[in-house]
Amino acid sequence: MLGAARWLIEGRGYSALGVAEICKAAGVPKGSFYCFFESKESLALAVVDEHWAAQKPDWERALGGTGRPLERLRRLFEETEAGQRAVQDGCGTVSGCLFGNLTLELSSQTESVRLRLQKIFEAQVDMVESVIAEARRRGEVRATETRQAARAVVAQMEGQVMFAKLYNNTARLTPLWDNCRALLGATAA
Amino acid sequence: MLGAARWLIEGRGYSALGVAEICKAAGVPKGSFYCFFESKESLALAVVDEHWAAQKPDWERALGGTGRPLERLRRLFEETEAGQRAVQDGCGTVSGCLFGNLTLELSSQTESVRLRLQKIFEAQVDMVESVIAEARRRGEVRATETRQAARAVVAQMEGQVMFAKLYNNTARLTPLWDNCRALLGATAA
Repeated sequence: MLGAARWLIEGRGYSALGVAEICKAAGVPKGSFYCFFESKESLALAVVDEHWAAQKPDWERALGGTGRPLERLRRLFEETEAGQRAVQDGCGTVSGCLFGNLTLELSSQTESVRLRLQKIFEAQVDMVESVIAEARRRGEVRATETRQAARAVVAQMEGQVMFAKLYNNTARLTPLWDNCRALLGATAA
Repeated sequence: MLGAARWLIEGRGYSALGVAEICKAAGVPKGSFYCFFESKESLALAVVDEHWAAQKPDWERALGGTGRPLERLRRLFEETEAGQRAVQDGCGTVSGCLFGNLTLELSSQTESVRLRLQKIFEAQVDMVESVIAEARRRGEVRATETRQAARAVVAQMEGQVMFAKLYNNTARLTPLWDNCRALLGATAA
């Protein structure tokens, strides 16, 4: 059910979806929805949680490890671009970021989802900030306010992923690395 | 009708809206919708066009004029923050960017709206690029690829506006000026 719901939400958005349609895509009897979820909102929360549970280890793997900190950020951008390209290869369109999509579609309506999305983005900013702080200790970036810098990097990713989706073109994500080095005032090539 | 439709789309998104509800908010008889618009999609196009017709002169005024080019970009960020704050003061929530919201809600479904949003963002990038090119001629920025730099600035705005909406906090827009100077490699304070 979660897989079907996520697929539908990525393709058509959350608001337009009906419970009956989700059941049909999931191959469960229409009417059995409320055996699985209390509400459509709790389904949305489960989809968001599952997506982050899948994505978080990818972020940890990309940003962790022993390479130079900025190279690990670069790996995150490259994997993001490759992930969007894989979805585009499979279904023809760039799906964008599920969290960003739901932020702009839902955040003013569905308080529980909004709070969950806030937590997820804070976790992403935490992970990026710790890499920036490490780069700063090594003298590889000039940025001094690491929190603000990490927010700018995640905002840049969200903005460029939005354009990749709008233009259905994952090459829009290639400049992320240059943009990030400029944002952070990287001191070396 | 356009004003009512825009207000509803900003508050609740496009997909969840019904034609009857738009008519009710606009104070026109239910059933008269198709006297005004061929389809809900053509209403969305009209809302997008009207919003850009209103916003474009603001961008031209902020980015035009005789001040230093980067100061004009700074004016655009300050006016964007003030505009989001005014909406928040009026209705309690940061509404974000109508174009960004619709990009993430609709772009994979409604081809005509997607093409219109592409044009509008290209126009925004054009305007920002011409300011960056002017700054470059004056030696005030190090960025050499002005198109890519302009896209990064608009993406940064969209990403930070997304976070202002998610956290319902317009102060998220204050770092735009520092972020932009870093992105462009500004050479002076």
